[in-house]
Amino acid sequence: MFSRLQKICKKLEEENLDGLLLSSPANITYLTEYPSRDSYLLVSRKGNLYFTDSRYTQEAKTFLKGRAQVKDASGTTFKTIAQGLADLGLKRVGFESRYLPYAEYKRIHLDLNKRSLLIPTHSLVEELRQIKDAGEIKKIREAVKICIGALELMRNFIAPGKKEIEVVAEMERFIRYQGASNSSFDTIVATGAHAAYPHHISGQRKLSKAEPVLIDAGVEFKGYKSDLTRVYFLSKMDGLISKVYDIVRGAQLKAIEEIRPGTAISKIDRAARGYIAKKGYAPYFKHNLGHGLGLEIHELPNISPKSDIELEEGMVFTIEPGIYLPGKFGIRIEDMVLVTKKGCEVLSGALNK
Amino acid sequence: MFSRLQKICKKLEEENLDGLLLSSPANITYLTEYPSRDSYLLVSRKGNLYFTDSRYTQEAKTFLKGRAQVKDASGTTFKTIAQGLADLGLKRVGFESRYLPYAEYKRIHLDLNKRSLLIPTHSLVEELRQIKDAGEIKKIREAVKICIGALELMRNFIAPGKKEIEVVAEMERFIRYQGASNSSFDTIVATGAHAAYPHHISGQRKLSKAEPVLIDAGVEFKGYKSDLTRVYFLSKMDGLISKVYDIVRGAQLKAIEEIRPGTAISKIDRAARGYIAKKGYAPYFKHNLGHGLGLEIHELPNISPKSDIELEEGMVFTIEPGIYLPGKFGIRIEDMVLVTKKGCEVLSGALNK
Repeated sequence: MFSRLQKICKKLEEENLDGLLLSSPANITYLTEYPSRDSYLLVSRKGNLYFTDSRYTQEAKTFLKGRAQVKDASGTTFKTIAQGLADLGLKRVGFESRYLPYAEYKRIHLDLNKRSLLIPTHSLVEELRQIKDAGEIKKIREAVKICIGALELMRNFIAPGKKEIEVVAEMERFIRYQGASNSSFDTIVATGAHAAYPHHISGQRKLSKAEPVLIDAGVEFKGYKSDLTRVYFLSKMDGLISKVYDIVRGAQLKAIEEIRPGTAISKIDRAARGYIAKKGYAPYFKHNLGHGLGLEIHELPNISPKSDIELEEGMVFTIEPGIYLPGKFGIRIEDMVLVTKKGCEVLSGALNK
Repeated sequence: MFSRLQKICKKLEEENLDGLLLSSPANITYLTEYPSRDSYLLVSRKGNLYFTDSRYTQEAKTFLKGRAQVKDASGTTFKTIAQGLADLGLKRVGFESRYLPYAEYKRIHLDLNKRSLLIPTHSLVEELRQIKDAGEIKKIREAVKICIGALELMRNFIAPGKKEIEVVAEMERFIRYQGASNSSFDTIVATGAHAAYPHHISGQRKLSKAEPVLIDAGVEFKGYKSDLTRVYFLSKMDGLISKVYDIVRGAQLKAIEEIRPGTAISKIDRAARGYIAKKGYAPYFKHNLGHGLGLEIHELPNISPKSDIELEEGMVFTIEPGIYLPGKFGIRIEDMVLVTKKGCEVLSGALNK
């Protein structure tokens, strides 16, 4: 049996559960190490069942040999799942309450007809996923490396008159030649006032000499994701823009200095947020300081002022303070860090800011 | 008020509901005509509320003026939603049971504390979305046109020795210069035995003269999606491949011939499936014949043998029979059709097969 599957079985015992029904594609992928789509996974000491439809059964059987039995559930998904639970004689089965839609819960519950009890669980697998193993870190490093290359490409490509979407086009081509399977989210190329919207959709607007260009990009390598943001200038910027840039950079460094195992995450956030507040820009930095990432672009840990957890070795997350002046411009700088035994490594550190 | 919002309000009256809480991004986008991310929308005769977080509030306020009031729900999403429902004095509020996760339902239900009753609904907006209006059809036509251009580009690019992912790379660049914002799903470029998996992930495998190349691609234009599949040959194929190709093409034509308002969808599916069965390949065509598409890559109507609905003017969907011989190869041909007053228009019809 796989050690990830063993770990989750141990967790199930602690939670007094006979099995866990998973519906999150990322969690299923993590446990099976098989890129999961349109599937459900039942994990238990009595056996693992993988439910999917006829488009995937053939492929899944090949990849999941020895890990899970593949059930073709085409057109009868919930009945087949309920039957699978009942056949294994599982009494108390956890489900992922944040991922299972209400209607699917109801269907399985009805089909079970009291043979098993469905019990809501929260983040059981997500908590395991917070700590990356060596194989995962290797893939993340590669995703970061390709992204750094893509940012360099874009930095050389941008020029007054180019459209935001054309910058994205060049990046989307480049990363695939470098071994990435995809970008990890819709690349943001935002100029001028657009950059004051943290999640601008790149479009037909043309770059201009007078405005900073914000690029937020990430790539996916063997399922693992990177996420970096840079702001580039096409000419000497006016004083306010440079000033805000330096404050954002300063806030990022303040946060990174604090990162080591045992530190409260809220303290990391406070280091950056406090610095921005001291400089008078508190109202313009509203989002979280960062987020974990790996198989998903946003996963645990949240780097938030409200977090009540401490950093551990093996966590990977972004540090991305930003200041957004509505109608004017926005500056965000985002790097990725890995918590090491005694401190942290800035995975995207080699990049010239 | 917007006519789409009016239509759904009328539906709510028929369902004896005071309001509807939406969580499906595509449904929210449809009703507001604003590309929605990370949001919830409450629609009611007493007012519309749009709940999002601080990353989007500024942008949302600009776009939703006169359609919905924007509520910043950062960090307090479910409490803010519950309060919004209660403030409007709504007693019976529908929710999207296929999209609202169990945990979110529970949170809102608890926060409501019996001030409003949450009632599961199913596909209320999806049913409206089945019938495309003139503006939507225009966008879909453009998405199809760009996709046809991309397929031509890829047909010219493919050659023995090129990698699957390199073909994707060129396509991803091209479509953005043509005005698309994105591909509408992970482009499938599958060669040889890979093509026998209907949803292969494109990778490092090289194209070869001896094997057919299956390309399944789509693009997004102003939110609307296209989806087409072609099989290209790099040399004269052996007899079995040509034979299977002709059967798949024949099945597609049989289905298209039957498409007109009033025809049962199951009959369309039967026309193609029956043809393949008659030729002896029934066990190798397991998936549905097609799917509706628009704001989502899969939406109503399902073109399935189990469908119990009839075609209506304005429906847009794919017709994509396929025959997959495990370990050997797979052939699928996919076109998009629009149901017209008296028959149908093959939107992707100009493309040389």
